[in-house]
Amino acid sequence: MKMTAPLMVTLLAAIGLALPSGLLAAESCVGCHAEKTPAAVAQWRQSAHGKAGIGCESCHGSDHDRILKGEAKVDLTRCAPCHPKATKEHQASRHGLGLHTGWGCTRNLPDRKKDECRFCHRQGDEAPSTLVQCARFLKQSSEMAHVGCNSCHMVEGSCDSCHSKHSTDLAIARDPASCAKCHMGPDHPQWEMWQTSEHGILNKSAGRKLGPDCQSCHMPAGTHNVSSGITMNSGGVPYPAGQRAKARDEMVKICSGCHAPSFARRELEQGDAVRSQSLAILKEAEETILDLNTLGLLDPMPDHRPPHPLSGFQLVTDAQMLYEDTSHIERLFFKMKKYDYAKTVKGAYHQNPAYAHWYGNAELKMDLIDIKSEARRLKERKKAEPGQAGIEEELRSLKGRFERGALSAGDYAKEKARLLDRGN
Amino acid sequence: MKMTAPLMVTLLAAIGLALPSGLLAAESCVGCHAEKTPAAVAQWRQSAHGKAGIGCESCHGSDHDRILKGEAKVDLTRCAPCHPKATKEHQASRHGLGLHTGWGCTRNLPDRKKDECRFCHRQGDEAPSTLVQCARFLKQSSEMAHVGCNSCHMVEGSCDSCHSKHSTDLAIARDPASCAKCHMGPDHPQWEMWQTSEHGILNKSAGRKLGPDCQSCHMPAGTHNVSSGITMNSGGVPYPAGQRAKARDEMVKICSGCHAPSFARRELEQGDAVRSQSLAILKEAEETILDLNTLGLLDPMPDHRPPHPLSGFQLVTDAQMLYEDTSHIERLFFKMKKYDYAKTVKGAYHQNPAYAHWYGNAELKMDLIDIKSEARRLKERKKAEPGQAGIEEELRSLKGRFERGALSAGDYAKEKARLLDRGN
Amino acid sequence: MKMTAPLMVTLLAAIGLALPSGLLAAESCVGCHAEKTPAAVAQWRQSAHGKAGIGCESCHGSDHDRILKGEAKVDLTRCAPCHPKATKEHQASRHGLGLHTGWGCTRNLPDRKKDECRFCHRQGDEAPSTLVQCARFLKQSSEMAHVGCNSCHMVEGSCDSCHSKHSTDLAIARDPASCAKCHMGPDHPQWEMWQTSEHGILNKSAGRKLGPDCQSCHMPAGTHNVSSGITMNSGGVPYPAGQRAKARDEMVKICSGCHAPSFARRELEQGDAVRSQSLAILKEAEETILDLNTLGLLDPMPDHRPPHPLSGFQLVTDAQMLYEDTSHIERLFFKMKKYDYAKTVKGAYHQNPAYAHWYGNAELKMDLIDIKSEARRLKERKKAEPGQAGIEEELRSLKGRFERGALSAGDYAKEKARLLDRGN
Repeated sequence: MKMTAPLMVTLLAAIGLALPSGLLAAESCVGCHAEKTPAAVAQWRQSAHGKAGIGCESCHGSDHDRILKGEAKVDLTRCAPCHPKATKEHQASRHGLGLHTGWGCTRNLPDRKKDECRFCHRQGDEAPSTLVQCARFLKQSSEMAHVGCNSCHMVEGSCDSCHSKHSTDLAIARDPASCAKCHMGPDHPQWEMWQTSEHGILNKSAGRKLGPDCQSCHMPAGTHNVSSGITMNSGGVPYPAGQRAKARDEMVKICSGCHAPSFARRELEQGDAVRSQSLAILKEAEETILDLNTLGLLDPMPDHRPPHPLSGFQLVTDAQMLYEDTSHIERLFFKMKKYDYAKTVKGAYHQNPAYAHWYGNAELKMDLIDIKSEARRLKERKKAEPGQAGIEEELRSLKGRFERGALSAGDYAKEKARLLDRGN
Repeated sequence: MKMTAPLMVTLLAAIGLALPSGLLAAESCVGCHAEKTPAAVAQWRQSAHGKAGIGCESCHGSDHDRILKGEAKVDLTRCAPCHPKATKEHQASRHGLGLHTGWGCTRNLPDRKKDECRFCHRQGDEAPSTLVQCARFLKQSSEMAHVGCNSCHMVEGSCDSCHSKHSTDLAIARDPASCAKCHMGPDHPQWEMWQTSEHGILNKSAGRKLGPDCQSCHMPAGTHNVSSGITMNSGGVPYPAGQRAKARDEMVKICSGCHAPSFARRELEQGDAVRSQSLAILKEAEETILDLNTLGLLDPMPDHRPPHPLSGFQLVTDAQMLYEDTSHIERLFFKMKKYDYAKTVKGAYHQNPAYAHWYGNAELKMDLIDIKSEARRLKERKKAEPGQAGIEEELRSLKGRFERGALSAGDYAKEKARLLDRGN
Repeated sequence: MKMTAPLMVTLLAAIGLALPSGLLAAESCVGCHAEKTPAAVAQWRQSAHGKAGIGCESCHGSDHDRILKGEAKVDLTRCAPCHPKATKEHQASRHGLGLHTGWGCTRNLPDRKKDECRFCHRQGDEAPSTLVQCARFLKQSSEMAHVGCNSCHMVEGSCDSCHSKHSTDLAIARDPASCAKCHMGPDHPQWEMWQTSEHGILNKSAGRKLGPDCQSCHMPAGTHNVSSGITMNSGGVPYPAGQRAKARDEMVKICSGCHAPSFARRELEQGDAVRSQSLAILKEAEETILDLNTLGLLDPMPDHRPPHPLSGFQLVTDAQMLYEDTSHIERLFFKMKKYDYAKTVKGAYHQNPAYAHWYGNAELKMDLIDIKSEARRLKERKKAEPGQAGIEEELRSLKGRFERGALSAGDYAKEKARLLDRGN
């Protein structure tokens, strides 16, 4: 039985929906577009939308000029009214933070565009509606922000990040390749590590039932909340204990579809241990850099380079850390933090030995070697200059470590006394 | 109806071809080879060649000794007479330059082989028939040239670079994996970036019609000219404006099979902007190196290392740049130019955010940090030596920048005056 | 016909096997586990084991407490009695050395576990039953050893490294993805390089018959001895001539299933040449480091850093080389040796030009540039210190090279005389 417009009105009424105004509009769009963008029209005809008579105007609106200028993007606000459950789940998940993680206040940028303001401010409101900012975005050109950063981070408001545009075939959104579009690369190669994990290889040779894919574990029962069971923030820093325990229980429950819960918990705890150990390596590297900064030995020092867009001439090693206009040693740390650490920890939780160890842990350790070597070079370089008093420098470094909380008051006093004794 | 030899003669005659002499010869080859190389024989039997009675000798010739020594390679000159249209298109494309891009004058090499001459010279002719040379090839061992360089660059004359040898199944040549054999890796990972682009993931989950593959965009309507629509040379340097505009129109037309032309053009222009920005980063790094060379600070300087096979003791930073026997800072630049820049630009045009940004743009910026850090080290190192007059060095650097065209005459005069004033 | 228990007894008797005691036990396990671990039970029911009535207890034993604690791992000793041929072949191959390559004496480690002893010692026996040790393992946390090192190296005793646990579907073990679980990553990316080699792409587009996979060449006729035809040890060092010739003949025989033997031999010999050339580059880098060590210029020197777990304060550059607590220049060498060299050589033998050349050979050459640059820096750094006698240092370096066998007695005498002459 072919779906006709009158039949659909009846069916839609039965499930409490009115006939979308786009249905008839579609007829007029399709006239031209079947010729101008035949693929889009063909996909739409085959789609759940097309079959249910949800026409062009329902999603694209009717202002043809704005559409042509690329100003009438179809975003979450269009999809939400018809898909309220998925929207709510999506917004509760980390995907719901996509753009806010990848966007910052553009007020100081020379080439900002007016509509960028609305990412953080409601129309006519000066107070930001979000506090999350990304310094990297601020240093980036708008073109790189478009083809790079925002291609992934706009998942916050763009359902078509995962769902293909005119086709609504769920097989597309459910394919791990869909997730790969963002979840790959040096900073979070989840797709690559899954592919060659036990789960991925079973998936390839024996299908989804034996080999779980992204959805199996991260969208259980089809939820759009992709963050259940996750015990750390997107930078890999563990959540507070209570939140962590709750999330862990959720994940063990998911694993228990196939594994004994005791086994699953044990495996995940191995991942936790690897995470703590990796954080300690990171910390050692960061301390080395903070120490050089206290001693004025970074090359160049933050006040001799272009200002950080959020923190000015302060050294930044946290989530807002930049990868341009810094020093060689900070670049090494950026790689450790953003690439090596992520590979180690995600590799461990995704059961991929090569990512956990070679791509992750071994790189962490080798980069630490290089950071220490560079720190020695920078310290010697200073010594080579005449008139450097060694003890004063060590005292300054000690004070810095104490003030950063890397040294207890007792240890600080003890180390200080030892140094002053040596000085006499 | 089974194809018999007499029937084929008739058919071939009808399309203006004589019965290949190989047909009967095949009978004699097959006698032994069905046992000695059964796979090859089985594939040939199933192939379009086998079915049409194009036998072994048609492609391999009849000199069994030369075949056994590997001297009777089946190359384009064998295929061309029967496949003139494909040959012409192929030769008009960048594929037609394959070997010439990867080959250089071998006259000074100790272990050169005689038939290498024929890549550049016609038999009995001293003048080279091509000017394109690759310095890297000249520094390479002939074994690495065989398993490395030429495996890809021989696409110029080897149809079996893409078409499998005895089987003629088009599904093989059309599979993106066939392209991947060369178009992957650190210098041009088109295959990797396509796989996880929107196009690639749609291809995987929904097929070629919804998700275009290599051929869809680069061999439209089945042409063997793979270079239509390309706006830059193989080193990523943009073509002159006119050629660029024509190529862009061609590509927009291809995109328009699925997308609105205005959208396609806008997206490609974002790629152009990313390309210009990336070239500027490259330029900044190159200037730093050229400056060090002017100041005599490269370590080692070009005249203290083995000569460049084409340019001798000159510094080379262009397409003939080497990756051996140079300095640490040049090695960093080589990576920027050959790997980071390629990933950024190709990642942008292939709509892959992780390649455009993390693998490409972020690496470009981080490598620039390292290049600047190394440049500072080299300059300080010089200063540490006694008797260095700071201003003379700066004047020399200024002059170098002016002579390279990196500084206008006006700016040169101004900067020079400023320096000389300071000197008094 | 459904397989019933009595029928199976008959069938098993017919092939000389008794009914495994596990059959009836299975009934009691399955009662709970069909609910607790339904996937495992479902897979087992579909498996060859399930169909033949090989029940839970046959593999897992009957001590439920030990199973729950993860102490009753199903290993080779369980599988061997029923699968003697595969076991024997496996143990004769390099897979049979898996754990012994990745395991070392833990006696000096603070957190060692009691059952670790049994990897090297038989119960009650102080003498080690193996000599192979891995220093890296000794420096590693037990958690990283679990999720990293041992995940692959336990192939020695764990059939489920390749065979999935409860399902016995051979399609899983035979899929190249199964091999990829270990044979991928920076240290030996065989899977990645096969995928985009001629063999891999034919496999993808035309299937196993035209495009050989891992098994086709490394497990010919289904043998579990994966090491036939291999001419070098796992570190890439060639076997002695006799062993090498025998292995080469085996491999040429395998290739000859599809290729002319003369062609196959020629191609493999190109690989050999690339291997020798790559070893020479490695050697040059290693010599540079050994020289710095002789001169006391490594930063830090081995006696100023945590001791190597097997060699104490000696410099280690062989297979036991570490990637932590060493110097920057050693880290560069580690990458050359473990990553670049492996990619070059394996890339050549697997016919992947991008791995052989760009990922391998080019990196080897670029890392050598960096090693030489760092060596110059370390030597200058020493010179910057007052009171350094240049000739004494060169004499020490010369002596070191002579003692390591890198300089003949004649050349040593000649070079020494030249230096002493210069000194006057």
